Amino acid sequence: MFQSLLQGVVEAADGGVASLVMDLDGITLDSYSKPDARFDIQMVGIELSVVIKGVTQASSMLEAGNTQEVAIVADELITVVRMVNEQYFVALSLEPGANIGKARYILRTRVPAMASELV
Amino acid sequence: MFQSLLQGVVEAADGGVASLVMDLDGITLDSYSKPDARFDIQMVGIELSVVIKGVTQASSMLEAGNTQEVAIVADELITVVRMVNEQYFVALSLEPGANIGKARYILRTRVPAMASELV
Repeated sequence: MFQSLLQGVVEAADGGVASLVMDLDGITLDSYSKPDARFDIQMVGIELSVVIKGVTQASSMLEAGNTQEVAIVADELITVVRMVNEQYFVALSLEPGANIGKARYILRTRVPAMASELV
Repeated sequence: MFQSLLQGVVEAADGGVASLVMDLDGITLDSYSKPDARFDIQMVGIELSVVIKGVTQASSMLEAGNTQEVAIVADELITVVRMVNEQYFVALSLEPGANIGKARYILRTRVPAMASELV
């Protein structure tokens, strides 16, 4: 469904490993993973969906508006998330040490094109 | 306790508004806020502590190692969090449109100095 966009995002990002489109209930719409990915992007997405739901609730509590983006850096895995709308997000996983600024830029420029198909 | 470090972090960051040191249970050790800050950094920290706890649990579930950093961009508020150790974090709130890369750099270079005092 979004295969070429997801693959394009992973390949454009320095250190990109996998990406997916998911809703906040943890239902995957589509995903792409490099063959040598160390992490299962579905599992990453499911854990993320819980975190992102918490973030959107926190943003709402603080009257800070809609969540646009979340980036998480752990020792072995970097994940950058861009909200497509209030219900769907795209997550991009990267290798440790990858360029987060570039990953954010790629998501910011490519993800909005999906919004018209995810209403 | 960490007043000069927290103030220095806020003033060094382009668009910096407030910062605090907190543990994962939402207990603030110290905080600094510019007089014109639109958000109460204590409230931001308490919401964040729940999110960060969720992130550390997710990282653990995924065997992704320790969480190092979390950045959240909402319409009205950007917050960058750097873990000091497994229990304490520093959060830096920024105005919308602020330079996140620079904020991450400032936290990465200044926060580790706190670790010896937070054991």
